[in-house]
Amino acid sequence: MADLTLTTFDWVPELPRGYVRDLRVRWALEEAALPYRVASVPFGDRSAAHLAHQPFGQVPWLTDGDISIFESGAILLHLGERSAVLMPADPRGRSEATEWVFAALNSVEMASLPWSILKFTGDAGDTPAWKFLDDFLKLRLKHVEPVLAGREWLAGSFSVADILMSDVLRLVDRFDGLAEHPACRDYVARATARPAFAKARADQMAHFAAADAARAGA
Amino acid sequence: MADLTLTTFDWVPELPRGYVRDLRVRWALEEAALPYRVASVPFGDRSAAHLAHQPFGQVPWLTDGDISIFESGAILLHLGERSAVLMPADPRGRSEATEWVFAALNSVEMASLPWSILKFTGDAGDTPAWKFLDDFLKLRLKHVEPVLAGREWLAGSFSVADILMSDVLRLVDRFDGLAEHPACRDYVARATARPAFAKARADQMAHFAAADAARAGA
Repeated sequence: MADLTLTTFDWVPELPRGYVRDLRVRWALEEAALPYRVASVPFGDRSAAHLAHQPFGQVPWLTDGDISIFESGAILLHLGERSAVLMPADPRGRSEATEWVFAALNSVEMASLPWSILKFTGDAGDTPAWKFLDDFLKLRLKHVEPVLAGREWLAGSFSVADILMSDVLRLVDRFDGLAEHPACRDYVARATARPAFAKARADQMAHFAAADAARAGA
Repeated sequence: MADLTLTTFDWVPELPRGYVRDLRVRWALEEAALPYRVASVPFGDRSAAHLAHQPFGQVPWLTDGDISIFESGAILLHLGERSAVLMPADPRGRSEATEWVFAALNSVEMASLPWSILKFTGDAGDTPAWKFLDDFLKLRLKHVEPVLAGREWLAGSFSVADILMSDVLRLVDRFDGLAEHPACRDYVARATARPAFAKARADQMAHFAAADAARAGA
């Protein structure tokens, strides 16, 4: 049994809780029933040791024996090689899951993350840059909608692609960005109804709540 | 010998020429010396047949026998499995190349593509949304700079990760976004000096020039 350790922040503010990207990795590990430990790095101090594992000063990263991997997409593909629950075994299915992993991140999240952050900060306003981001996201959702209206999961059966796509869309939904995209909304509901998601989310919330308690007691 | 076919647009306007993403795939195929055909779909009409291969109505996609793959990242990982020139053979090297493939796309291009499009359209202006995008890109470049100052290529030897990262940074450089990041600039120069890049770029330019000639003659 390999020694899997997921590293996330020791604490984050209230607002991102439930959305920190370690959730994607927890979710995959729960789906695959792979045992793992959770380790923490300081949120307030991105040390050289942190940057050696995650050069952008973010989380998560995963260590698997002596291999350390950052980027949630790369981590999920790595775990996909270890469990047929996460990735179809046949070449066509693997290829489909892989292309949708990239599509979730590079075609949808590329548009949705800047959009979500500006919604969150309140800096969405009537400017050309905001209008570009809003149109960019709507165009991508327009193309995702018929895909999700026609299938339960992106690559035949549930896979890491669904963890990523539903997590990306879940953040859009938080800011009411899926109102005109019922198939996207139904898909988020379907994905987040899975017990492995509920466990992953509860564990992330508990991890940060424990940090609050430790701070209060310190 | 598998039958590899790369599909791109039949024509694009002048400005994106040399930057259409089929270039990433051409570059990888040239590095690996894999034989391939180039096919075209109409730029002006994104048909149902097009969407069946690329659900976002974009290019490129690659067919390899009876498998069709979209997303440049997914295509490059697929080709990486076919050539040690594109992807290290050892597990640690493969893992490193894969995480940098995702980092190029999801940590850097996520910030740089909206930035580049707004630079291109002239819609960069003194607004909170633009300032967010500009700061977002600068933060990501700040983290990439020391990585590229310390190594020639991202994953030990040249790999698909370098094709993606240098192509992403090349577009930033086009809009003078690397002025304060000399290691990023040197890296782009180093990558684009490779004969396979020059061949890929020349072939893309010739492909669209041929379309101009066909239109003029029509």
